[in-house]
Amino acid sequence: MGALKNFAIIVAGGSGVRMGSGIPKQFLPINGIPVLFHTIRKFEGIVDEIILVLPASHFTYWNELCEKYSFKLNIRLVEGGDSRTKSVIHGLNAIKEAGIIAIHDAVRPLVSRKLISYLLKEAELHGNAIPAIPVRDSLRKKNGDQNTAVNRSEYFSVQTPQCFQYQIIKTGYENCYGRDFSDDASVIDYGGGKINLVEGEISNIKITFREDILFAEALLNATEM
Amino acid sequence: MGALKNFAIIVAGGSGVRMGSGIPKQFLPINGIPVLFHTIRKFEGIVDEIILVLPASHFTYWNELCEKYSFKLNIRLVEGGDSRTKSVIHGLNAIKEAGIIAIHDAVRPLVSRKLISYLLKEAELHGNAIPAIPVRDSLRKKNGDQNTAVNRSEYFSVQTPQCFQYQIIKTGYENCYGRDFSDDASVIDYGGGKINLVEGEISNIKITFREDILFAEALLNATEM
Repeated sequence: MGALKNFAIIVAGGSGVRMGSGIPKQFLPINGIPVLFHTIRKFEGIVDEIILVLPASHFTYWNELCEKYSFKLNIRLVEGGDSRTKSVIHGLNAIKEAGIIAIHDAVRPLVSRKLISYLLKEAELHGNAIPAIPVRDSLRKKNGDQNTAVNRSEYFSVQTPQCFQYQIIKTGYENCYGRDFSDDASVIDYGGGKINLVEGEISNIKITFREDILFAEALLNATEM
Repeated sequence: MGALKNFAIIVAGGSGVRMGSGIPKQFLPINGIPVLFHTIRKFEGIVDEIILVLPASHFTYWNELCEKYSFKLNIRLVEGGDSRTKSVIHGLNAIKEAGIIAIHDAVRPLVSRKLISYLLKEAELHGNAIPAIPVRDSLRKKNGDQNTAVNRSEYFSVQTPQCFQYQIIKTGYENCYGRDFSDDASVIDYGGGKINLVEGEISNIKITFREDILFAEALLNATEM
């Protein structure tokens, strides 16, 4: 850890529509333990404070889960907004001091502790650090009702945690109030900032589909994460 | 099956560099059976003929594997070229009659038989059929030494088998002799043709990294493919 405090904002907005399941993805079990518990534990001991942003309607369920699984980690619970962007802003508003902020998807439980630490250090040095990996499949781009191949070597798949110096991301979001972004790096783009890409991890997938739970279980069973 | 014959060209070019393993990816075991055997079996009974394009240097190893695993499926072995494009052309040259051609990566063993059949039918109707899925992660695009977010909803990840009416893909490759393409749909693009995208499958991944073998095993163990 550097001289500055490190914070994690874990954003759990999804309603789980794409899972074919009533339970939001972040609460589905991986090896019997909810996704979100796996995710949060990755940040334990690396950051000074963990802020969990959840829809208010999930608070009761969350508290029940914590009790059921005797999950006693000291986290701060913050109410989500009606978009990812607003949820992140609520998380940022809960932080009152300078530091390095890791903003992470609740549904990326497979990120390694090594990558988190490295990204925080990179963000402290360079203002931001965004994990990304090469695109695996050929890509095509919509073009009216047609579609054409693009050169995939020019593209990266972006992951989280996306890490920032507090003032940079806080000001970034303030300067684009009212707009929605799919990730936090885009907020820096919008303000004309330069993005510092860091090599991410193949295994750091977003739990989006039922198959991803199987992948996560296989990986956890095969490796010391 | 339609009135026309169906063919599969299975392209196994890779040398496995990215696996951190000396064995080319298509020969690595999934649940104890080489990837390539899983892949080939998906086409059994759906197509009239299976053409396997392998580097000549792998022929001996392939024959040993067939013996070891008592793999007796009737396939035609064709020597690969020094690029994917040339390997596909060698496969196409081995076909002497009109029909529908499914060109498939050897390292996509998880494709479903249902998807293969559907793509062949679609290609018979429309000239081509290319499986694709939405892009999962946020995308960034290189822009000199910078990189910027792009709208991922405009992009698709392209899979295989890519299916074509024989004359269309044969002529397509003839018209761009000497060029290299990362997939077969790009050959149609090059000739000004329109691509018919069909919904692919999340699970139809390309075995590229060690983690993918774990995923494949988890999925095979959990489901009737």
